[in-house]
Amino acid sequence: MSELRWDPLKNNWAIITKGRGRRPQDFLQQRQQIKMAACPFCKGNEDKTPPEIYAHRPNGSKPNQDGWQVRVIPNKFPALRIEGELENRAEGLYDRMNGIGAHEVIIEHPEHNRTMADLSTEELAEVLKAYRVRMLDLRRDSRFRYIFIFKNFGVEAAANVPHSHSQLIAVPLIPPLIATELATSREHFERKERCLLCDLVRQERASKERVVRDDGNFIVYAPYASNFPFELLVAPLEHSHDFTLLTDQQILLLADTLGDTLRRLRSILRDPPYSFILHSAPPMHLRWGRPDYWASLPSDYHWHIEIAPKLINVAGFEWGSGFQMNPTPPEEAADFLRHADPSITY
Amino acid sequence: MSELRWDPLKNNWAIITKGRGRRPQDFLQQRQQIKMAACPFCKGNEDKTPPEIYAHRPNGSKPNQDGWQVRVIPNKFPALRIEGELENRAEGLYDRMNGIGAHEVIIEHPEHNRTMADLSTEELAEVLKAYRVRMLDLRRDSRFRYIFIFKNFGVEAAANVPHSHSQLIAVPLIPPLIATELATSREHFERKERCLLCDLVRQERASKERVVRDDGNFIVYAPYASNFPFELLVAPLEHSHDFTLLTDQQILLLADTLGDTLRRLRSILRDPPYSFILHSAPPMHLRWGRPDYWASLPSDYHWHIEIAPKLINVAGFEWGSGFQMNPTPPEEAADFLRHADPSITY
Repeated sequence: MSELRWDPLKNNWAIITKGRGRRPQDFLQQRQQIKMAACPFCKGNEDKTPPEIYAHRPNGSKPNQDGWQVRVIPNKFPALRIEGELENRAEGLYDRMNGIGAHEVIIEHPEHNRTMADLSTEELAEVLKAYRVRMLDLRRDSRFRYIFIFKNFGVEAAANVPHSHSQLIAVPLIPPLIATELATSREHFERKERCLLCDLVRQERASKERVVRDDGNFIVYAPYASNFPFELLVAPLEHSHDFTLLTDQQILLLADTLGDTLRRLRSILRDPPYSFILHSAPPMHLRWGRPDYWASLPSDYHWHIEIAPKLINVAGFEWGSGFQMNPTPPEEAADFLRHADPSITY
Repeated sequence: MSELRWDPLKNNWAIITKGRGRRPQDFLQQRQQIKMAACPFCKGNEDKTPPEIYAHRPNGSKPNQDGWQVRVIPNKFPALRIEGELENRAEGLYDRMNGIGAHEVIIEHPEHNRTMADLSTEELAEVLKAYRVRMLDLRRDSRFRYIFIFKNFGVEAAANVPHSHSQLIAVPLIPPLIATELATSREHFERKERCLLCDLVRQERASKERVVRDDGNFIVYAPYASNFPFELLVAPLEHSHDFTLLTDQQILLLADTLGDTLRRLRSILRDPPYSFILHSAPPMHLRWGRPDYWASLPSDYHWHIEIAPKLINVAGFEWGSGFQMNPTPPEEAADFLRHADPSITY
């Protein structure tokens, strides 16, 4: 029988439709391809992008030239712009503010055909370090309440440049889903003096049925109320509210976990389109002379990465109700992923 | 410049990315087609579906035979089932309940190739009456906290049978988005003794810039913080919390508005995939001897229909943040739709 399941972190229900259980082979898709005349993200085409903001250049090459391993540039068509004032104001019953923010692209590798799953642990660690550098830099701008790092892979997941890249968007508001997670985590801590995600991770480690991998540093599990088939959550076992506090050594361990997880997804779902997004605590700022209401203390949050392959269409019911219908129970998804061979490529 | 916009009904922000403004022609798509050997929804194939729950048979033909104009059947692969107990309980920190509910299909017309936009006002009115009949019937089951009527049109909007149909899903919980709308509406009323959507409609009628049509009975407008390009809201001008209170005469007027609106979308977006969903007040039940917390008084809600063409991919940022990015400002969408010729077909 189908189940409705509630997640205490997201304070949200999902419908796990067990009767129509779907296995990896039911989701295999003919992947769409984008043809591009010349890829602006490839090495040698550095002049086809806006000037770089950051690059990892192991041999000390000059900015905006070949020789980089990871490169961060402003998005050429940004959703939000860095210049200007918010002009936060009402319009009758509505509210509006200007689209102030930042929108950057993290090019993960100079070669066109290497995906994130193809990167070595050391290469992937450099991408994660670029995330850290850019988050720390943008955090200094007190207009930005939140900084998102995310990745869309594949046309179906809205990646319209095939060259492997992640994105950063800084927004002048706490986004709704982050606000919910901050509120549920803070409420749990105030009542119990324990971190909510630490408690959830403890329960997952005890039952094991939704755990994909657990190397003693990072855990990967399929959330109990997964909204999507093969949805995953990656979290540090040791409590930490802030991704940017990761040491270089911890980043290497995270790269090992993340790379292996992406390879497991690639193996059983034949290189599926997917998105992932980093959820970390908001930066601490003063607002009107007081600490920002949303400013997180270490107790208030537990950073994590959420990964969702793009396998099903979100349609009328999901959009209009806020309920997701997920045809693959997370216990089955975790079982497939636990037994996946990460070395199989497509 | 892009704008962030807040909607008081949904208590949610959208990012309207004006700089990348997209017009109807930017969204025209090669529509996917589904081939089916024999369509179970066509007249003459009544024995290929589960027995009908309701049918409009103007000439009094027998159930489960030809001669119907609208036909309601149980979904053959229901997401939720009507038999059983909820068994609502905790699993450690999580909650779960059995997937009790109802899942029905409203076949809108006996002919395979007539879409909802092709129906006459009288034919469409019979579909809306079928909605009313089924809602009133399922409401008597006090396990169901909410009854959704929705429609997905086109493969891209997850309609996997091409024959024109709507769906009904009854759920044992108030869905998250409905809970938000009920809470914002109730709070507004308690503070001001006015209905929130009545206030919003008044503001829209005064400014006119987002209004697509307004015949004195029903208004169609593009919401201020539209999450999707060409998103629309259809509401009765006269306050009413409950769709099922519509008289036959009012249903004819609604059919006129809804049909014309769908034809305008078809005209400017060349028969786009779309979803719509009916938001009406939850049924009134007693729980544990008290009126249900969510049971709506007439003051607490204003029913409406939300329509969204499926033109953009929802990807990592939207999924992980709760913010939607919408490249078409609702003022522009409304302008295109106001000037659309509803008689153009594709």
